[in-house]
Amino acid sequence: MQLDPTGNVTDTPGFRAGATYAGIKTYGEGKLDLGVLAADFPCVVAGTFTKNRFRSAAVTINVEHLANGKARAVIVNSGCANSSTGDRGLDDAREMARLTGERFGFAPEEVLVGSTGVIGRFLPMDKIAAGVAAIDLDTGGGDAFSRAITTTDTRTKHGSVRFGPYVIAGCCKGAAMIHPNMATMLAYLTTDAPVDREFLQSELREAVDRSFNLVAIDTDTSPSDTVLVFARDPEGRPDAINADSPLAGEFREALRLMTAHLCREIARDGEGSTRMIEATVRGAASDGDARLLARLLTTSYLLKSAVHGADPNWGRISAIIGRSEVVFQEEDVTIDLCGTRVFERSLPTGFDEGAVSAAMKSDEVPIVVDLGAGIATATAWGCDLTPEYVHLNADYTT
Amino acid sequence: MQLDPTGNVTDTPGFRAGATYAGIKTYGEGKLDLGVLAADFPCVVAGTFTKNRFRSAAVTINVEHLANGKARAVIVNSGCANSSTGDRGLDDAREMARLTGERFGFAPEEVLVGSTGVIGRFLPMDKIAAGVAAIDLDTGGGDAFSRAITTTDTRTKHGSVRFGPYVIAGCCKGAAMIHPNMATMLAYLTTDAPVDREFLQSELREAVDRSFNLVAIDTDTSPSDTVLVFARDPEGRPDAINADSPLAGEFREALRLMTAHLCREIARDGEGSTRMIEATVRGAASDGDARLLARLLTTSYLLKSAVHGADPNWGRISAIIGRSEVVFQEEDVTIDLCGTRVFERSLPTGFDEGAVSAAMKSDEVPIVVDLGAGIATATAWGCDLTPEYVHLNADYTT
Repeated sequence: MQLDPTGNVTDTPGFRAGATYAGIKTYGEGKLDLGVLAADFPCVVAGTFTKNRFRSAAVTINVEHLANGKARAVIVNSGCANSSTGDRGLDDAREMARLTGERFGFAPEEVLVGSTGVIGRFLPMDKIAAGVAAIDLDTGGGDAFSRAITTTDTRTKHGSVRFGPYVIAGCCKGAAMIHPNMATMLAYLTTDAPVDREFLQSELREAVDRSFNLVAIDTDTSPSDTVLVFARDPEGRPDAINADSPLAGEFREALRLMTAHLCREIARDGEGSTRMIEATVRGAASDGDARLLARLLTTSYLLKSAVHGADPNWGRISAIIGRSEVVFQEEDVTIDLCGTRVFERSLPTGFDEGAVSAAMKSDEVPIVVDLGAGIATATAWGCDLTPEYVHLNADYTT
Repeated sequence: MQLDPTGNVTDTPGFRAGATYAGIKTYGEGKLDLGVLAADFPCVVAGTFTKNRFRSAAVTINVEHLANGKARAVIVNSGCANSSTGDRGLDDAREMARLTGERFGFAPEEVLVGSTGVIGRFLPMDKIAAGVAAIDLDTGGGDAFSRAITTTDTRTKHGSVRFGPYVIAGCCKGAAMIHPNMATMLAYLTTDAPVDREFLQSELREAVDRSFNLVAIDTDTSPSDTVLVFARDPEGRPDAINADSPLAGEFREALRLMTAHLCREIARDGEGSTRMIEATVRGAASDGDARLLARLLTTSYLLKSAVHGADPNWGRISAIIGRSEVVFQEEDVTIDLCGTRVFERSLPTGFDEGAVSAAMKSDEVPIVVDLGAGIATATAWGCDLTPEYVHLNADYTT
């Protein structure tokens, strides 16, 4: 089974999309900022949403509209998160769904909503209404849709996987405020496979836990974090995919390939970043320890700065292990940086700093910590911290 | 009671200090990098040390030497943390104490040790030995001592407070890897007051909890974090200060003034920083909630970047509250930025963004969050995130 990084959401048969520039994003004039993705057939939809208690209006509306587990379309704008906007924000999100349903022939509650951008500003509803009217859906519209959902992303993130007779495809956005807990920024997946909704939801949770929940650009979670997967409604079909189906394993593998690909794409495109950090923890006493430490290794200001400078300053890695509260004995810990053992038996190994620094000057910096305390393992993804990250976030609203 | 920001450790009668350039710091050639602080009389010493499980050799030796709660001097080098250096590191730290005791007439175990700088390198013991031999102690040596303990600090941090007939004075260092848990980088306090050791230790814990444990430059704790307070040994003195003494309250106030001053000085001098963030949480349901949220407000990449750009992007504050897991109802929360109410009753207040941005362009940016959930309060200190922080930490060892 292979992932096609050129694939996108409308490569799944039965899905169409379209986008327009509605004038919501004030930066990057002319870019697309409003997109719609819709299915030609009834769908079951599984979703995971932000755990941030300041939920955006879109997240609240999506939870309402998914009460029966079904939907047909999603409309997403960038440039305004419609978050911390009170009742007016909820009304605006509902109106976005209604306008979209009216234009494309769905009931309002069959339409889901996404909004990403500045927090605490109201949606320009006149522009949204004009934008919805201007959108046409097309089987080649996936690329436009994935462009419309971006904010400070420098590129779109998408892919597709074929499994059995089916396709699963997805796209996502996110370049900062990325430290998801149960879900990340905005990610949309489509599949033409008829998948049992309970199975779809439980598999999505597992896949998100191994992918989006282990990616970090900074330590800020967003009120908008959302992952949705649309699958053909399996109602009445004997070939519906559930835990007992012959295709269950292939579907699981395809879904995990897709979500892992999308979250690596997010890490590669972290705001201002020049290289990705892939932190692997082995020999942990528990899954929780492995996941916790892997995340800490991708979120330290000092380590992210050192990676930016290709500085093999592994003392920052040991300092993170030391403060992590995971189970270990110092003498059992080993640290590998770009494939070179730098710390072992409580001592620096006396490695060639110039050689490791040269190895760090690439697109990916692998860090492997073996705690020697058990058999659990986890991998998390992040990126270097750069002056550009600060510049980008020092004057985002003004 | 007033703090004198020009005061230093040797302003306390009975304390002398001295420093030299031993050649340990490879950057800033000619700066002082080895200092000794000593008392003319027997002292009791209270200390708090890092919770990082990769403890530096100095921390381990200090715990050993403080088994009886007494000491006479401390020797500190900058430029090398002597951490993750195994048994050889412990031997080196013991030798530093022995050399210092020999030179100034103390038993080895009456001397404490501090080392700060790069992790994972061995101390150049020949340079330390030559340095100790070159140091002379003087009642005006506090300034030299406080210079010798700095690394990337741009200035020294020190002060003194008079209470009753006594003085308490202190100095500290720290500009990065600052996110202490129970103690911070290196801080040394002196007092000529005869203080009961149990009382001294419990008061120090309280004071550190309200000061150093609420300051953050980044989220990295150091293996070297240490706060020590030297007080005149009260043995056999009827005027020893303990919890029941008339002077207990004044001593407590003086100690808290000193520690709060030193930690604000650290926040002001955060690596690369241009302004301090003072985050106050009110109306919290518990002290734990207040402290947790205050710390989160000083450690967010996004909020620290926004403060650098004087961007009144309060949505980043609400996003932090939302992910903090403290008790609150959204409609009860208010946010004040530089004295202006920006969020109330679940809605932005429609404040003047230009005016608040102008107010943020000062040395101190106060953020006040009222959770409306109780009566607990806490204040934490941090600084803005700047491109210079990244530059400074991108090539620290190479």
